Amino acid sequence: MAVSTGPLQSLQRRFADALEREIERWFARVAPEPVFPGMMRYQMGSVDETLQPTGRTGGKRFRPMLCLLCAEACGGIPERALPVGAAIEILHNFSLVHDDIEDHDPDRRHRPTVWRVWGEPQALNAGDGMHALAHRALLALEASAEDKLELAVAFADMALQLTRGQFLDMSFETRTDVSADDYMEMISLKSAAIIAFSAWAGAVIAGAPARIRAELYTYGRHLGRAFQIEDDIQGIWGNPEQTGKQPAMDIVNRKKTLPVLMALERGRGRDADVLAGFYRTRGGDVQPVLQLIDSLGVREQTESALGHELSLARAALDRADLAETDRERLVSLARELTGGSTG
Amino acid sequence: MAVSTGPLQSLQRRFADALEREIERWFARVAPEPVFPGMMRYQMGSVDETLQPTGRTGGKRFRPMLCLLCAEACGGIPERALPVGAAIEILHNFSLVHDDIEDHDPDRRHRPTVWRVWGEPQALNAGDGMHALAHRALLALEASAEDKLELAVAFADMALQLTRGQFLDMSFETRTDVSADDYMEMISLKSAAIIAFSAWAGAVIAGAPARIRAELYTYGRHLGRAFQIEDDIQGIWGNPEQTGKQPAMDIVNRKKTLPVLMALERGRGRDADVLAGFYRTRGGDVQPVLQLIDSLGVREQTESALGHELSLARAALDRADLAETDRERLVSLARELTGGSTG
Repeated sequence: MAVSTGPLQSLQRRFADALEREIERWFARVAPEPVFPGMMRYQMGSVDETLQPTGRTGGKRFRPMLCLLCAEACGGIPERALPVGAAIEILHNFSLVHDDIEDHDPDRRHRPTVWRVWGEPQALNAGDGMHALAHRALLALEASAEDKLELAVAFADMALQLTRGQFLDMSFETRTDVSADDYMEMISLKSAAIIAFSAWAGAVIAGAPARIRAELYTYGRHLGRAFQIEDDIQGIWGNPEQTGKQPAMDIVNRKKTLPVLMALERGRGRDADVLAGFYRTRGGDVQPVLQLIDSLGVREQTESALGHELSLARAALDRADLAETDRERLVSLARELTGGSTG
Repeated sequence: MAVSTGPLQSLQRRFADALEREIERWFARVAPEPVFPGMMRYQMGSVDETLQPTGRTGGKRFRPMLCLLCAEACGGIPERALPVGAAIEILHNFSLVHDDIEDHDPDRRHRPTVWRVWGEPQALNAGDGMHALAHRALLALEASAEDKLELAVAFADMALQLTRGQFLDMSFETRTDVSADDYMEMISLKSAAIIAFSAWAGAVIAGAPARIRAELYTYGRHLGRAFQIEDDIQGIWGNPEQTGKQPAMDIVNRKKTLPVLMALERGRGRDADVLAGFYRTRGGDVQPVLQLIDSLGVREQTESALGHELSLARAALDRADLAETDRERLVSLARELTGGSTG
């Protein structure tokens, strides 16, 4: 694997430390007792199970980095977006803590999930605390009262979309009539809304005109969909050493991700019976299902859908009249986040 | 039981319909599909398990009613506080949905809890959606941008206190070193913070001076503690037909409520062994523990603590220089909410 020199790494070099300080500033205010904020820090990757510092962070922090990059691309000072970036990252991690409880996922980022370390009730509380803290952190932004209120309203609307997307995702597991359209709506809520908000908020903080804000929202929305489709690809065909999850976990959990829905649509005769039978039950052997999904050509079809979203993201950037270097950074970021080195 | 003619009923007559409309306005915006907002409506009492209207509401809505009353007592228009009242009630119910998951409580308000009807993962999502919606509903307040931001910051801080209080409450179940002081801090966060916010927010909306706002916060804080102590009394000695819960559920769940902590402090010799043994295990017979708690005189001691909080609440009102009728309504409300007809 080549050493990454993409825009994300460049952003991380410039802003990662400041972002972590901004996030930690909020955790330090949560409580005098160590465990409640400790669970939050553990989720963010900065401490281990015994609450000792790890000296690193978990996750790429790409949503806040996108927010800072969009602020800069619109002529703003990226550092001013740090409180919003912290709010976005804390909100994102709240949703991961609760998703892991709901899915009973044992591992995340190569470590036991919060519920496995502290139990489901306290993991639920840690997530709730992070959710409240995210709304609080956003309001620390230095901006006009009107801009802050516009951002707070959009942030709350987005958080609601996020939770509704998670509801839909879970409901798909027991439904047998889920279409690819249903799926795209679900990921627009669950995954794309927070990424679209991140890009849009950067433009708002930079004082960009309404038309540019809207185009960056559209860019973020398609990038978010592409990112989720890439995640679905990783959830089936990803290398466990890179994902930090067990292999084919999305199949084990009967998650109705895009490749699975495509396979269910494509499978005929005995193939359809094998798939339907597997998705009607719990347990059972994953290998035959994996082989079947591969043989139906679903991986190529999924990658084509991903490419389509990336092209729509790029078209929105073209309409936004950004400087060429800024446009190129946002295109490269989209490419980097979705695993592609070209396209 | 005499027919209630207290201030709460009077407030409900005036504002209950408008409050329910304000709450429903938000649920109607949540999603086109019925189940996600349906779980929220079920929690609020307005629909049954099949999502058909019940024609009533669940709960007294006393927190928003307190907010409206405080706005009026400070010379404001109570209706203007309705968006904040809706936010408070939605936030309160989010916390109940998650508490019921954590405690595995089977019933609330004479009906199965949300997790029992829709399963834990979706109940968790419904609660998360209500949490996001509460922050959104607050921002619909018609007020100056500065006032809205002050309320939004305090609301997010309060939501964080609420979740931290719930964390502490759960952690007490497995700790053996919990003091009555620890307990009072916990209920100040878990129960009193939202009630203190409700009273304070009413004063803010009415444009009351800072000193009056602070006294109403103090009033709400002590009222909230008194209310929780009364809830603890009901959780052990309450009539299941009135509480809608199974009898002595707090003992069954090993909740370290004030009466239990007092009993653990008072018990000596064999009594101490019986109590310690029960609280070290799960399961076991509740009756001997109930009898022991009664024999230790703990009920009287708990009621004395409740009376102390009520007197502190009244003292804050005395310092707030309200009109005599307004002061009297707030004193009566505190009395009504804590089960006392005198004192």
